[in-house]
Amino acid sequence: MKVRRSDRLIDMTRYLLERPHQLVSLTFFSERYGSAKSSISEDLTILKRTLKARGTGILETVPGAAGGARFLPYITQGEATKFVDSVIESLSEADRFLPGGYVYMSDLLGRPNVLRQVGRLVATQYLHDNVDAVLTVATKGIPIAQSISEQLNVPFVIARHDSQITEGSTVSVNYVSGSSSRIEKMALSKRSLEPGARVLIVDDFMKGGGTVGGMQSLIKEFDATVAGVAVFAEGAFDGERVVPNYTSVLKIHATDDHVDVTPGNFVEQIFTSERVSQLTN
Amino acid sequence: MKVRRSDRLIDMTRYLLERPHQLVSLTFFSERYGSAKSSISEDLTILKRTLKARGTGILETVPGAAGGARFLPYITQGEATKFVDSVIESLSEADRFLPGGYVYMSDLLGRPNVLRQVGRLVATQYLHDNVDAVLTVATKGIPIAQSISEQLNVPFVIARHDSQITEGSTVSVNYVSGSSSRIEKMALSKRSLEPGARVLIVDDFMKGGGTVGGMQSLIKEFDATVAGVAVFAEGAFDGERVVPNYTSVLKIHATDDHVDVTPGNFVEQIFTSERVSQLTN
Repeated sequence: MKVRRSDRLIDMTRYLLERPHQLVSLTFFSERYGSAKSSISEDLTILKRTLKARGTGILETVPGAAGGARFLPYITQGEATKFVDSVIESLSEADRFLPGGYVYMSDLLGRPNVLRQVGRLVATQYLHDNVDAVLTVATKGIPIAQSISEQLNVPFVIARHDSQITEGSTVSVNYVSGSSSRIEKMALSKRSLEPGARVLIVDDFMKGGGTVGGMQSLIKEFDATVAGVAVFAEGAFDGERVVPNYTSVLKIHATDDHVDVTPGNFVEQIFTSERVSQLTN
Repeated sequence: MKVRRSDRLIDMTRYLLERPHQLVSLTFFSERYGSAKSSISEDLTILKRTLKARGTGILETVPGAAGGARFLPYITQGEATKFVDSVIESLSEADRFLPGGYVYMSDLLGRPNVLRQVGRLVATQYLHDNVDAVLTVATKGIPIAQSISEQLNVPFVIARHDSQITEGSTVSVNYVSGSSSRIEKMALSKRSLEPGARVLIVDDFMKGGGTVGGMQSLIKEFDATVAGVAVFAEGAFDGERVVPNYTSVLKIHATDDHVDVTPGNFVEQIFTSERVSQLTN
């Protein structure tokens, strides 16, 4: 059965957007719609133009018999800045202040629209980095890890402070919690990561960087490599962090009776890199 | 600037699919594309037909001046059955067996394509149920909760066994863990749920149902109501469960040296309901 161009465009949009970073072949689409490959190629050209014009992402087309298309989602600088500003506005509400200088932000990290934007932000940075997996530590980093995993279309894995029977054999490391100087432990299932995998470390909050350092040690134990470090919020920290390179969406500076939330280094670092600005402009 | 129909269809597909269950007005689209409302209405008719024909979901259109369209994602019975079968096949691999009769499934619950399908399954069941929030308990229910939250486009909230300073004031309940008969505790931030909210309880695994019972008690403490209970896997349990009504994607029956994974009651219960089969057929 032949399918009209309008129907093809709708279904191809849906199909490609649900499978970011995955190459879908011309042959697949051609058979799915009973259409000639030349028509599918024209469809892809229209898709590519619209997705770029609307700031949704890049449709990479691979020419030749084994060719096809791959959708790489990104966020533009304008939308990224707008998003960071909107999060800052939400977090600056007075009733978010918690005793001890903490900020209540669990609600934000449970909203699908916020999480999707965080995922798009970080996926923009690692657009061409061949990340194989996302690693976080339970509990509050999980939603961030999952949203990035979706946009990069790679699995995420969760290290835990308490090793559970349902994880099977685990590898564990000890690390010094940067802020409290206590020795802590985290464990990850032995089946989680392949040797040589490029692993992106993410967390909801980083202060001294001890937890992120723990994840770095874990990755080393698996003979894998660190692709980067991305956190939702960084707290003020006097002294040198164990982790030198990272990006943060927000900076939170809380005193005993007040909280300042400002943009992290994300937008500034990412969109000044030539590679990203070429892609998204 | 006027936008061509093909460009509109691509962008509208993306826009609506990213905002399930949210009404987007004709006026919004009309201004976004500089097109007459009559053209947008025609676009929506095409979208509705294609999304239904491909088993993606329903595009509900609301007529009138304040009208617009709302995308409700679902999964068809055929795709649901295929998905459940594929998960069973993965889980039946020999090397997943863990001492004590457990099954290793953390990797599956970290794969974006698996999680998306779980989300679509459960969202199909609650398509017209006005769920306000999804509740789970840390840690392993979180990815399930997040994927359902995305498809229903409502927030998810996380109860914890250890209450953390970053949650602010919490409400806690004690409950009897069904399988071990121990008394356990779970806490949820006071800011998490509104009184009267309809809350969907989800978890990765249910045996005796004690944890789910704990979440029911928590919801009661917030003067909210239980919209339903959905779990990824249920284990074999001798005796009566505290929780009478639930749906499960899988049934896992593990003995000392062997694991049986079979379909849960999900596909059977959902697609025999007249309401759902009318929608998805």
